[in-house]
Amino acid sequence: MVEKELRRLLPETKGLEESVCEAMRYSVFAGGKRIRPVLLLATNELCGGNTTEALPAACALEMVHTYSLIHDDLPAMDDGQLRRGIPTTHKKFGEAIALLAGDALLTLAFEALSNCHESVVPKLVYEMAHAAGTMGMIGGQVADIEWAGKEVEFPTLEYIHSHKTGALITASVRMGAIIAGTDTETLKSLTGYGHCLGLAFQIADDILDVESDSSITGKDSRSDVALNKATYPRLFGVAESRRRCLSLIEQSKKHLADFGPRAGMLEAIADIVGNRKA
Amino acid sequence: MVEKELRRLLPETKGLEESVCEAMRYSVFAGGKRIRPVLLLATNELCGGNTTEALPAACALEMVHTYSLIHDDLPAMDDGQLRRGIPTTHKKFGEAIALLAGDALLTLAFEALSNCHESVVPKLVYEMAHAAGTMGMIGGQVADIEWAGKEVEFPTLEYIHSHKTGALITASVRMGAIIAGTDTETLKSLTGYGHCLGLAFQIADDILDVESDSSITGKDSRSDVALNKATYPRLFGVAESRRRCLSLIEQSKKHLADFGPRAGMLEAIADIVGNRKA
Repeated sequence: MVEKELRRLLPETKGLEESVCEAMRYSVFAGGKRIRPVLLLATNELCGGNTTEALPAACALEMVHTYSLIHDDLPAMDDGQLRRGIPTTHKKFGEAIALLAGDALLTLAFEALSNCHESVVPKLVYEMAHAAGTMGMIGGQVADIEWAGKEVEFPTLEYIHSHKTGALITASVRMGAIIAGTDTETLKSLTGYGHCLGLAFQIADDILDVESDSSITGKDSRSDVALNKATYPRLFGVAESRRRCLSLIEQSKKHLADFGPRAGMLEAIADIVGNRKA
Repeated sequence: MVEKELRRLLPETKGLEESVCEAMRYSVFAGGKRIRPVLLLATNELCGGNTTEALPAACALEMVHTYSLIHDDLPAMDDGQLRRGIPTTHKKFGEAIALLAGDALLTLAFEALSNCHESVVPKLVYEMAHAAGTMGMIGGQVADIEWAGKEVEFPTLEYIHSHKTGALITASVRMGAIIAGTDTETLKSLTGYGHCLGLAFQIADDILDVESDSSITGKDSRSDVALNKATYPRLFGVAESRRRCLSLIEQSKKHLADFGPRAGMLEAIADIVGNRKA
């Protein structure tokens, strides 16, 4: 359903904007894990929401995620060459078009949100913007760049991870619940789940960067090491990082206790994140 | 009022995101003309709207405009050195922070919109995103880059201008009217006004690039010529460009006929655009 809706939202065009639209489609359909849309839809379903109504928001999150990857890969940032097994967007389309494709995906993400039920649009726009902005993802990216090559202590590392990756993952869970019209208490539990899961997700990412091969992850391996980034393995070693990741997965599931067996899907997603291989 | 609201929306911070927030403030408070906020507020007032309610949307437009300038000035795009009389954002803060500051301003613009009256938020988000995206501003920027150095014909030139600049100016007028709850017919007239004004604004910009000095415009002069951009003066010469600009100003005012003397402010803005010196 997400793939189909993404294809509807990102049509082929033959106008003067053709190249940027092609770059957007190239990046979005390179085959991501769609973890953010899946989290949004699973949470929405758990809270009794309607999946069709939630689809534009699920796709909006994937667009925000993809835009952040395109801009992160630019030479001014991490200068990535390979992403999802194919050349990064600027390698394929040039820097100017890659920059604009990222901008356009972020813009289109908000346009997609405006299609949700009008009673939830203001809340959704606020959630996504706040999670993607300076108090969320961008704040994490700034710290990630500025602390590369420096000795980091744990609070800084946790800030980077919970902002760079955690904020948008937490927003995925919260937005699914908001669309379903969930009460404040439930939203609080789900936020706790999202927060632990987001942090675990980034630790798993750090471990994969060290341990895995680009033929499996589809992106430049050991790039964090090359850029001397602040990572869990660098601060704690791989074994302790893995222990902390799995501990966060257990914590995330504890936040779901009140849902009982209905939370099976969210628990399964947590387990998959804890056992990430790519 | 706009300056005060912008300062509220862009506070100083002391967190790890400090540098990007400083870059955002540097760019926004470098002293733009604020034409988009002024247009939104003037239209909103003309349609009987409440100025305080319209302020977040007015500021959102200025943020979108500023983000587009920051990204346009990056080395991958026009490689601008000077903007509003001071070094461009990447010259001052480096490329990575400039890129993220642009991203953050676009994101914050949508967050600001979410503060408007909830009944109009979905429409406002759609208007701004559509005008700033591939069918609007970004489409214009793509064509602007791809047609640099090539022989352009009039339809391409008009596409570039009406999209690159016109779309967001038209959206300014439309959003002011939408916040005031204007009827479809009135919105149509105001859209006509915005469309003519936006095109005239960019032609005036082209003329200033050729004729004016960077001490007056505050940006690199003759940069369009250096980059071999598709401009009105290049296609028609300065005198004919000026004639077309003033003709569009007259056309824009005709769309205001039904408002009578109440449209004085919008007419005055059109005259200022027609006589732009900076």
